[in-house]
Amino acid sequence: MTEGPLIAGIELGGTKCICILARGPDAIEETVRIPTTRPAETLAAIEAVLDRWSGFVAIGIASFGPVSIDRHAADYGHITSTPKPGWAGTDIAGRLQRRYGVPTGFHSDVVGAALAEARWGAAKGLADIAYVTVGTGVGAGLIAGGRPVDGLTHSELGHIRPVRFPGDDWIGHCPYHGACLEGLVAGPSIAARIGHPAHEAPADHPVWDGVAHALGQLLHTLVLTGIPRRIVMGGGVMDASHLFPRVRAAMTRSLNGYIALPDVALVDSYVVAPSLGGNAGPLGAVVLGGQALADRDGTSFTTP
Amino acid sequence: MTEGPLIAGIELGGTKCICILARGPDAIEETVRIPTTRPAETLAAIEAVLDRWSGFVAIGIASFGPVSIDRHAADYGHITSTPKPGWAGTDIAGRLQRRYGVPTGFHSDVVGAALAEARWGAAKGLADIAYVTVGTGVGAGLIAGGRPVDGLTHSELGHIRPVRFPGDDWIGHCPYHGACLEGLVAGPSIAARIGHPAHEAPADHPVWDGVAHALGQLLHTLVLTGIPRRIVMGGGVMDASHLFPRVRAAMTRSLNGYIALPDVALVDSYVVAPSLGGNAGPLGAVVLGGQALADRDGTSFTTP
Repeated sequence: MTEGPLIAGIELGGTKCICILARGPDAIEETVRIPTTRPAETLAAIEAVLDRWSGFVAIGIASFGPVSIDRHAADYGHITSTPKPGWAGTDIAGRLQRRYGVPTGFHSDVVGAALAEARWGAAKGLADIAYVTVGTGVGAGLIAGGRPVDGLTHSELGHIRPVRFPGDDWIGHCPYHGACLEGLVAGPSIAARIGHPAHEAPADHPVWDGVAHALGQLLHTLVLTGIPRRIVMGGGVMDASHLFPRVRAAMTRSLNGYIALPDVALVDSYVVAPSLGGNAGPLGAVVLGGQALADRDGTSFTTP
Repeated sequence: MTEGPLIAGIELGGTKCICILARGPDAIEETVRIPTTRPAETLAAIEAVLDRWSGFVAIGIASFGPVSIDRHAADYGHITSTPKPGWAGTDIAGRLQRRYGVPTGFHSDVVGAALAEARWGAAKGLADIAYVTVGTGVGAGLIAGGRPVDGLTHSELGHIRPVRFPGDDWIGHCPYHGACLEGLVAGPSIAARIGHPAHEAPADHPVWDGVAHALGQLLHTLVLTGIPRRIVMGGGVMDASHLFPRVRAAMTRSLNGYIALPDVALVDSYVVAPSLGGNAGPLGAVVLGGQALADRDGTSFTTP
């Protein structure tokens, strides 16, 4: 068995945090759940867990956002402008890095899940993927060469403005953009439109036509970035399994043969559901920790 | 003076090729132009130039496309499905690499220009940028950490489908997508719409409203990738200098404050014209050669 490094991974979520001490999905030593309350209280609880753990050689954090992932910025490692009370401007990565003195990786929760699905999940073995989550919001993470694709900030491609389904002129639900992707297809957007939760809408509800069309536009855009060899789509809205064939068809129709590569044409294996479930977040944090360790050592991160 | 490696750069264009022997923009030893005719003839003429040159330690090629830049693919380094007679399926990088036995970089002409503008041009000193060319077609190249952003293939974001300018339902000019970005704003698309070349349309011609709106949608999407610290926009259509303020305004209006970073808010320095002119292509090839060399040696590519 390959022995990867032991890493403390933290998924910092809006309602709960998951701390995991692991080398990989088949080598998890402990998992601890902590409610996300005020920053001081929550971070102290995380530190109490990490204080008790020994032997980890790196820390990874996959956080709700927006977060600053720009290493050139003064606020690197912070949660930035979240509406979540008390959390805006909170330093996460710097605090833990200083306390434990080990390499500390930090990125968005979406990118974390993308990294985990690329390493151990539904896109295992592929270095270049996209991961989309359609739930309370719409997130899209891109991984190229096994690493997060970013620069100034992390992807916010859930807020692109899609062309509309013919005849649909609903104003949408995004406070910034109205009918951007998130404003059309996120769970709360669908609920605002139909007056009840999305999961209560049957497969033949007309709302799904517009949802599938808009998500097809997101996939069209993701394919045209040139990056993904596979696109993994998760989140509560995608639990409506009838969506997958409709979204794949919408993507194919929109591209209209433009990217003539078999990877994309084999659409059932190109657009897939995730496979790690609730472990994608904390395992993504483990990958972020492993990559921070590898960056320090000038090596690459291997895992069991 | 820093001495960078001497590199043979080749910009392979649809009508002409430019071969350059250089260490950087201030250290160009020779430039040779060759008409692009049939592949065998054109490649032999390039080889005649390189045979005569001595001392170059790497080759870089920035080619018209589509090209295969996937190192895992059997057709890596080839031009793939171009309609240009005789060129589909032509091996470029492999042929030159075998003949000269030096590290050989290969990418699209758009990515080449992006690399050159990031290293020496209008985005000098920035590792994370986007480069957009609006001319015969629309190309968009992304650079992150100083390297091309890609995976399965190169960016084709010039073919995203923008939401339309209110009241505009022209069918567009792209044979694949109709009213995608290229189908609305490329030079031939504008000409098809107004019946004469784009550069003959005065600044108050109504066609520009839709062009600026569509380009604003492309910039909206590029910003949301999270990558660019600056966006460089060139190509013949952007020679209409009145477009810059309109495109910047369209981007700002569309984002509506969503990415609250000063880099993006300072829009006059965020969206800029290129500065290398016709040298961007061949100098981009020099960067590609330098990066191939650095990859072999496990170093980084430094330049004068």
